[in-house]
Amino acid sequence: MRFARVREGWVRVEGGQGLLLDDAPWRGGRETGATAELSDLLAPVEPTKIICVGRNYRAHAEEMGAEVPAEPLLFLKPPSSLLGQGGTIEPPAVSQRVDYEGEIGVVIGRRGRNIPERQAREHIFGLTCANDVTARDIQRADVQFTRGKGFDTFCPVGPWIETDAPSLDDLELITRVDAEVRQRGRTSQMIFGIEHLVAYISAVMTLEPGDLILTGTPEGVAPLQPGQRVEVEVVGIGTLCNVMGERTVA
Amino acid sequence: MRFARVREGWVRVEGGQGLLLDDAPWRGGRETGATAELSDLLAPVEPTKIICVGRNYRAHAEEMGAEVPAEPLLFLKPPSSLLGQGGTIEPPAVSQRVDYEGEIGVVIGRRGRNIPERQAREHIFGLTCANDVTARDIQRADVQFTRGKGFDTFCPVGPWIETDAPSLDDLELITRVDAEVRQRGRTSQMIFGIEHLVAYISAVMTLEPGDLILTGTPEGVAPLQPGQRVEVEVVGIGTLCNVMGERTVA
Repeated sequence: MRFARVREGWVRVEGGQGLLLDDAPWRGGRETGATAELSDLLAPVEPTKIICVGRNYRAHAEEMGAEVPAEPLLFLKPPSSLLGQGGTIEPPAVSQRVDYEGEIGVVIGRRGRNIPERQAREHIFGLTCANDVTARDIQRADVQFTRGKGFDTFCPVGPWIETDAPSLDDLELITRVDAEVRQRGRTSQMIFGIEHLVAYISAVMTLEPGDLILTGTPEGVAPLQPGQRVEVEVVGIGTLCNVMGERTVA
Repeated sequence: MRFARVREGWVRVEGGQGLLLDDAPWRGGRETGATAELSDLLAPVEPTKIICVGRNYRAHAEEMGAEVPAEPLLFLKPPSSLLGQGGTIEPPAVSQRVDYEGEIGVVIGRRGRNIPERQAREHIFGLTCANDVTARDIQRADVQFTRGKGFDTFCPVGPWIETDAPSLDDLELITRVDAEVRQRGRTSQMIFGIEHLVAYISAVMTLEPGDLILTGTPEGVAPLQPGQRVEVEVVGIGTLCNVMGERTVA
């Protein structure tokens, strides 16, 4: 099933329509009988935190000139950075280079701490598409990733959550800029798989329903130019589309 | 005025009693007439994010062997790391060194983006005491601060929020371990003052009511041993007390 979020609340997506729910789907939200337009989708998450994994594809670590980590490299993006389907990525005046990073998003459905890897699936509500937008120059200058990856609009997510993903182990991810393929990866190429990530992160911090994990980006990251359209497709899940806005003058 | 959080909700603290409110104080919560015990205080925040500032006191940057940053160094702690007054800091099995870092906490009361420094005060609801507990060995190994500073119980905050702080520019911070003074700092020694931090952070990410800013720690950080009691006092605001728990076996 597919669940999306609109101004009125959560909806189940069916036949191009939104069937309104009375609560978040992972809290057992039921259909109210009302319908909603799917024209203005919000990011389909309600995270208390957005946990991201750096350098989780070997070829991307290499293109960054970075070592492949021995353990998952964790960082956080603030919920204020969320952006929905069709939203405009706003490049901050202080950066000269804003890159796309297509990623698979994992939405948590059940609270957990120290989740064993074999039980990780029970804590996953569904999957979505995400873009770990990064002000590359600021990320490099700060060393800490927080500011460079934390600007408002730097976490596009959507269009919806798919709860019946075909597989966790061999999903395909494709990033396009103005319809040209720029990134292509498979979860089978990840250094740390999705279930391992859920287990690893939950050994540090309690995962809450609605929390979002971004699982890392494959090689092929590059800057976006104003007006360019960036698409992150997770095959069988959906396609997240956003537009790069104009740089404002500092 | 002082506002604290208990299981039943928010309270105004007066004469050792909690006067229950019907909502968070920054949302205009009113007293219901009911009272609540102050014996079991939760962290007095409801943050969508906890933004921290690294190396904001020169002598601390020096003791860490790090450069004084040209701009505030931002990182995030997850809300799952919050701990209230009297709670036990739980050292994770994967770390051999867990340090205290006494800090002044700033609670945001009004939403804002690109807040000018001269208007920062209008967005501050009040001040509290905080401890940026850090697994130093993991922080060093990961380079990114997220994991080393993000474990559950690694963000003690409290005991309450004081809305009538005597001053933002000359507050005194004292950290004690088993009653021995270990850190002593004043906001006047900060590299970046509180109003500058609010302005700087809000130029990156929208600040929401209930968000928490940890403003950096002075020199004197050191490891905690199991059973030790750590106190962070902000003079005129309050004293946050927590105990270091036993290390669990990996």
